[in-house]
Amino acid sequence: METEKILILKGNIISAPGFGRLELVENGYLVAEDGNITGVFKSLPDRFDGAHVTDCGSAIIMQSFCDMHLHAPQYPLLGLGLDMQLMEWLDTYTYPTEAKFKDTEYAKRVFEAFAQDLIGGGTTRVSVFSSVHNEATYALTEALSRLHVAGYIGKVNMDRSCPDSIREDTAASLRATEEWLERALPNKTLRPIITPRFVPVCSDELLSGLGHIAYRCGLPVQSHLSENIKEIALVRELCPETYGYWHAYERHGLLRRGSLMAHCVYSDLRERNALKENGVWAVHCPCSNMDLSSGIMPVRRFVYEGVNVCMGSDIAGGADLFMPGVIKAAVRMSKLNWIATAQSEPILSIAEAYYLATTAGAKCLGAGAGFAPGDPLHCIVVDDSRISAADEGRPLGERFERLMYRMQPADIIAVWAEGYRVK
Amino acid sequence: METEKILILKGNIISAPGFGRLELVENGYLVAEDGNITGVFKSLPDRFDGAHVTDCGSAIIMQSFCDMHLHAPQYPLLGLGLDMQLMEWLDTYTYPTEAKFKDTEYAKRVFEAFAQDLIGGGTTRVSVFSSVHNEATYALTEALSRLHVAGYIGKVNMDRSCPDSIREDTAASLRATEEWLERALPNKTLRPIITPRFVPVCSDELLSGLGHIAYRCGLPVQSHLSENIKEIALVRELCPETYGYWHAYERHGLLRRGSLMAHCVYSDLRERNALKENGVWAVHCPCSNMDLSSGIMPVRRFVYEGVNVCMGSDIAGGADLFMPGVIKAAVRMSKLNWIATAQSEPILSIAEAYYLATTAGAKCLGAGAGFAPGDPLHCIVVDDSRISAADEGRPLGERFERLMYRMQPADIIAVWAEGYRVK
Repeated sequence: METEKILILKGNIISAPGFGRLELVENGYLVAEDGNITGVFKSLPDRFDGAHVTDCGSAIIMQSFCDMHLHAPQYPLLGLGLDMQLMEWLDTYTYPTEAKFKDTEYAKRVFEAFAQDLIGGGTTRVSVFSSVHNEATYALTEALSRLHVAGYIGKVNMDRSCPDSIREDTAASLRATEEWLERALPNKTLRPIITPRFVPVCSDELLSGLGHIAYRCGLPVQSHLSENIKEIALVRELCPETYGYWHAYERHGLLRRGSLMAHCVYSDLRERNALKENGVWAVHCPCSNMDLSSGIMPVRRFVYEGVNVCMGSDIAGGADLFMPGVIKAAVRMSKLNWIATAQSEPILSIAEAYYLATTAGAKCLGAGAGFAPGDPLHCIVVDDSRISAADEGRPLGERFERLMYRMQPADIIAVWAEGYRVK
Repeated sequence: METEKILILKGNIISAPGFGRLELVENGYLVAEDGNITGVFKSLPDRFDGAHVTDCGSAIIMQSFCDMHLHAPQYPLLGLGLDMQLMEWLDTYTYPTEAKFKDTEYAKRVFEAFAQDLIGGGTTRVSVFSSVHNEATYALTEALSRLHVAGYIGKVNMDRSCPDSIREDTAASLRATEEWLERALPNKTLRPIITPRFVPVCSDELLSGLGHIAYRCGLPVQSHLSENIKEIALVRELCPETYGYWHAYERHGLLRRGSLMAHCVYSDLRERNALKENGVWAVHCPCSNMDLSSGIMPVRRFVYEGVNVCMGSDIAGGADLFMPGVIKAAVRMSKLNWIATAQSEPILSIAEAYYLATTAGAKCLGAGAGFAPGDPLHCIVVDDSRISAADEGRPLGERFERLMYRMQPADIIAVWAEGYRVK
């Protein structure tokens, strides 16, 4: 597959250059050369005279989605066991399912379907957990790379308090990580990220070893933080000498700049400060936080205090892989939070939630804001005619809002990832 | 269109005979004669020997949905203006849109699409609001009747505190209601229901007149109750002599047995008692209550106290017409309620929410529980192969749970309403 020398998309262009700030260009031009964005233009610059223009008609061209926390091997579990809470759900559903990824053929089959579903829904950048298995992790890398999905991928580490079928020996886990990295480090599009599952299933020795590897290779880390009340109590019990959940990572050098910590539902001021000081991203996973009855992350408080926030589906703790569903859930949850806080924490607007699910994730991965010139092209083209049939002629901003509430994967008629057309 | 003399569906049959109680029959038979349910059988009774059997294979045959509170003329508004709250949203979006239904051709076009979308999503019974316009109401009746949708339909009444374009003169409103009823009363499938919009836009004279009509014709009533803090404050201001919001209806004879009051987010003990004593149904509309930042209805408290509860999409205050989306929202909201109440109000299970969205509504309309013998056949057939592709072989109960989280209208491969095949 090749990128096009010059790609010119004509249509209604929407991007989110800032938190809550949308840029709307009606009948504009999005230009990319050799797969990299040249810019968004109201009228086509002279130097592209005579170049082929792909006319998207009245369709909407917008940034594709960044899913910054999700578990690929939990894809088969979507929508299952969600009357449970985190720890029970992990034991009953997640661990037995992840253990099956020892079978690489099974892994290939599942990851192929997962990657197709991801791209079909317009998600082109991720920070994804694999299982503990190296072979499965290679299979996931291949399935995603074929569709030019960019971002981070992590082989999971866990060496205690979990079933034998999925528990690693500490030394073997570290050795496997080194082996995986040897193969993964040259990949510049889907880069490796150190992935201790979470404190309850990782010994100090493992966490410390992973901290050393991350330091030596200059890699970020992804994990879970302060998601569920029982989980937090368990961490306190397991690590009585720490100042807080965050500290159980920090003392092993795992709160590295650019790292990602999912959930942060119950992060106190000290923990939020640790994230901020260390340049760690908090990943808001609203579907998961509802589906596993975890609680409400006060997103706006993080943003206000200057902690970096992006968004994730957290499949299969969250039942929605499709990011507009996650955006809708974030907005809905923020409305209940507004009520729960006696109206002191304002709701998230659709534009704010869209920013968290697009530009915020892209920035975490080193890209610019919105359709930033020089960045590889990541975009989707959405035909909203099905949705607007009963009510045409709305301004572009309203059409965008309606899409976030109502679009389905089938409405996405084209997807570009890393400059390649993949749908 | 004719019903079939004998219809035998073979497949995996799921129904909800009680709150939280599912009846699962694998490879069973659902039989209907002349459009009415004969029963669900593990093996086919001898007397049907030789009759044609429609084999649904591994598909799931289940009760179709009852949407017991929704506004058909708000269909064009789905997903719009939801960063607002109720009163502002009504003024900015709803009233101007509903005013357009004075144009009967427009109404026909919208209602045709609405009815198709409703059936396509497996909703076959409703309690639906039309607009204030009689002609539009006839058009809605026709569009729904062509697809054999059963339940209640109401011409809206409103005579104060709303734009001129939609406000009725009090006497004219009552006269129009009488005219509509003359034409509507003979319809035994889609029956008329008295529909004062809500207290803030209805004068005492109008409410009293409607109370008399309801009494004379023996009709139930549908309206809104205790949805939003500002709305409740307004009612208190407008009706200082009442004991509560419920009393503003009751004193005019509008809390009639079998009536439906949507939302009840802030109903206190006295209001809940008034609903119970009067045999009025509370309609839980979780999507709307989130989307318009209204609040959380403590569903389980209503159920525990013996108040009848069913479920509604409340489009377009709620952005989802598709009832599995409403079921998912109800469960998610109940999980946040569990947290907000310091874990004192247990979550709604998927099975409980499904009951509220099926059997509860059917009972409100006079039908039995589950697939009750003698009732007109209302059912859907769902092919979950798309959803289960990565994880086959789950027990039927888990497949059902996964469907509630993940199904899309396209997964519904057949729909029967009032015994007629309509999809």
